[in-house]
Amino acid sequence: MRGRAVIICVGDELLEGRVADTNSQYLRESLEPLGWKVVMIMTVADASEEISSALRFALGRGDLIILTGGLGPTPDDLTREGVAEGLGRQLVRDPAIESRLRDRFDRMGREMPPSNLRQADILTGGCEVIEGEGTAPGLLIREESRLIYLLPGVPSELRYMVEKKVLPALSLESDGLFRSSRKIELFGCTEAEAGEVVQSLLRQGSGIKASWLAREGVIQIRLWGEAADARELEGRLEDLVKKVSERLSGAVVSTDGSSLAEVASELMKRRGATLAVAESCTGGLIGERITSVPGSSLFFLGGVISYSVPVKTSLLGVPRKAINEKGVVSREVAEAMARGVRSLLGSDLALSSTGVAGPGGGTAETPIGTVCIGLSSEGGERSWELRLPGDRDMVRRLAANAALMALIRHLREGSGG
Amino acid sequence: MRGRAVIICVGDELLEGRVADTNSQYLRESLEPLGWKVVMIMTVADASEEISSALRFALGRGDLIILTGGLGPTPDDLTREGVAEGLGRQLVRDPAIESRLRDRFDRMGREMPPSNLRQADILTGGCEVIEGEGTAPGLLIREESRLIYLLPGVPSELRYMVEKKVLPALSLESDGLFRSSRKIELFGCTEAEAGEVVQSLLRQGSGIKASWLAREGVIQIRLWGEAADARELEGRLEDLVKKVSERLSGAVVSTDGSSLAEVASELMKRRGATLAVAESCTGGLIGERITSVPGSSLFFLGGVISYSVPVKTSLLGVPRKAINEKGVVSREVAEAMARGVRSLLGSDLALSSTGVAGPGGGTAETPIGTVCIGLSSEGGERSWELRLPGDRDMVRRLAANAALMALIRHLREGSGG
Repeated sequence: MRGRAVIICVGDELLEGRVADTNSQYLRESLEPLGWKVVMIMTVADASEEISSALRFALGRGDLIILTGGLGPTPDDLTREGVAEGLGRQLVRDPAIESRLRDRFDRMGREMPPSNLRQADILTGGCEVIEGEGTAPGLLIREESRLIYLLPGVPSELRYMVEKKVLPALSLESDGLFRSSRKIELFGCTEAEAGEVVQSLLRQGSGIKASWLAREGVIQIRLWGEAADARELEGRLEDLVKKVSERLSGAVVSTDGSSLAEVASELMKRRGATLAVAESCTGGLIGERITSVPGSSLFFLGGVISYSVPVKTSLLGVPRKAINEKGVVSREVAEAMARGVRSLLGSDLALSSTGVAGPGGGTAETPIGTVCIGLSSEGGERSWELRLPGDRDMVRRLAANAALMALIRHLREGSGG
Repeated sequence: MRGRAVIICVGDELLEGRVADTNSQYLRESLEPLGWKVVMIMTVADASEEISSALRFALGRGDLIILTGGLGPTPDDLTREGVAEGLGRQLVRDPAIESRLRDRFDRMGREMPPSNLRQADILTGGCEVIEGEGTAPGLLIREESRLIYLLPGVPSELRYMVEKKVLPALSLESDGLFRSSRKIELFGCTEAEAGEVVQSLLRQGSGIKASWLAREGVIQIRLWGEAADARELEGRLEDLVKKVSERLSGAVVSTDGSSLAEVASELMKRRGATLAVAESCTGGLIGERITSVPGSSLFFLGGVISYSVPVKTSLLGVPRKAINEKGVVSREVAEAMARGVRSLLGSDLALSSTGVAGPGGGTAETPIGTVCIGLSSEGGERSWELRLPGDRDMVRRLAANAALMALIRHLREGSGG
């Protein structure tokens, strides 16, 4: 590990929940592969006193301190002031930034508001200017052995500056070690199963570290490590990804960070086939997931939300008999829905869902969380009955993900890989 | 304002992004109406040293400090240890908690693991025990004039304890003032418009404060205040809600915290009418939103996801002529889609969407973000053309919300209220 990092997010809008903080997790994910461990995240108000006290505290906890937000031109942008106060330094106007700001406004044919000049302030006693995409430049201050970055709070401006300037600079502060990471997305195994496989492989002494994040049944494993030899490290990571993938093969969604919908989309396009959906308990969520990926119109024809029984029977041709005998939440009905929508829309493949998401509607035979997924193709119908945990919202999200995973497995079988 | 509050969230899983922190915003929303202002939120690792240093720092920043998480029985639950260290106090076993823990395990017919005994530890020097739902009791410590709460990190356990124990206790620490709040949900006006109306009304000196949160076009305004006379305060709040509602009448979704989908659902059930949807650019999202509310099967029949042109023409009967002459993203096509699905499913009302969500597909005439919403009823068709901002995901979410708002307005017009 290179050292300890503290992130300070500045902004009333974050404290008040008006804006969700996405910056701190982005920074953590960016810093970790370079060997920095984020030990604390602080969210503070737009007040010079709060910022300076948070910074002084952070100086005792971290070797790298990143402040985001509060660099704009308005009076409540006080990060520069707070940091100067915290370090006991002064603010001075930087002529180079000032002329760049004036140029920028000239090019836009606009008068620069005087308040924008505050963005040309830097700290005395050593302060590097980091040019970015927006008007607000970032600043880098060295305080004894510590690095203090002042970066914009607007996520797109932050990301630009971090990727183009901060990470390359941090990489140069080299300890001679090379760092790298990999991602594996899984669906269809438990967090405990995934954890056990990863931990048992890591115990074999690869020097690789792992963390995981589980959301809506999708488990994202991150593997990372550091070594003097880049090729050797990449080899170790590749080997580990391969071993995890082998041990959890049926559950692997991707090893390049792609989501369920992205992988399904890619496989559908490669196959050159078309897709339709028939949704009951998911109410449109499978279609929404598929069409969330740009370019889905190349293979996705559409579908039917058959939330009521008459839509299932009349539009999709689900036999009344199947509903009466097996129940509307049954593999038979799921298969008939998939077959029906495939025929109705003339698609090559079709997915379907029928289930009890709750909070009402559960019975002893089909308790809340029971979901049947159907898949129809030229070769006939397949179906799966699942018992999903969680509340209404979670059951529906898990069901949509399960349908996408069923499609992915089907497409991979068909292509032999 | 009663005073300054600092929230400390303890847990590696939060720092590492494996679990999203929902507790800090829940606590802020709960504390604010009682007069506490959250000035800082800290997220710290499961390490006694990190917890103690964060607490010592927080003692200088807040009058009320709430730590959540790290009270469980496992070795990485170190909040008790960290707080004891931070305050220079000792941990002692509390016999009453110990016997309650043993009773609980006895009732479950299970042996208590020795590690659970750690949950019976309290701090020396004055420490109140707060019984909760789970095995982990909370603790309240008074340090000079400050209140320090140690509460569970599991959201359901936290909420139970906050609502049943912490808020009532904080209310008792009375300054003789009564506090209350209201929520107004808006859609179809900008944050700036809403802000201006609220600020101009607040400037008239009601003593009420406001904050707002904008997400996917929905603006949630929170109004709160404090007064010696409860009835007078409620009157002022009611009056303000009424005035905001009058000034922004077309944009009011609810004044009781209900969401777009919940209000639409309630109005549909009251009308006793049925609904269908025909979705193109939203790909199933409108249906998903409607069916996210339990009981939607009472009025929602289903719909058609007509993502491709042939589904629009063959299944929904959209005239080729309208598509060729007006374009697939046009009010005419939106109306034909709504009419088509209403007829196909035999519903009383129908909603439709067609648009360009991007990133591809925009033209000079129909740039990315152009969305047409259609509504069909016994009285005929209506439609709206919108230019929505944001990326693909945001355009689709805004479009689904706009469709729900169109339905709400239609239902309110029809009922004269």
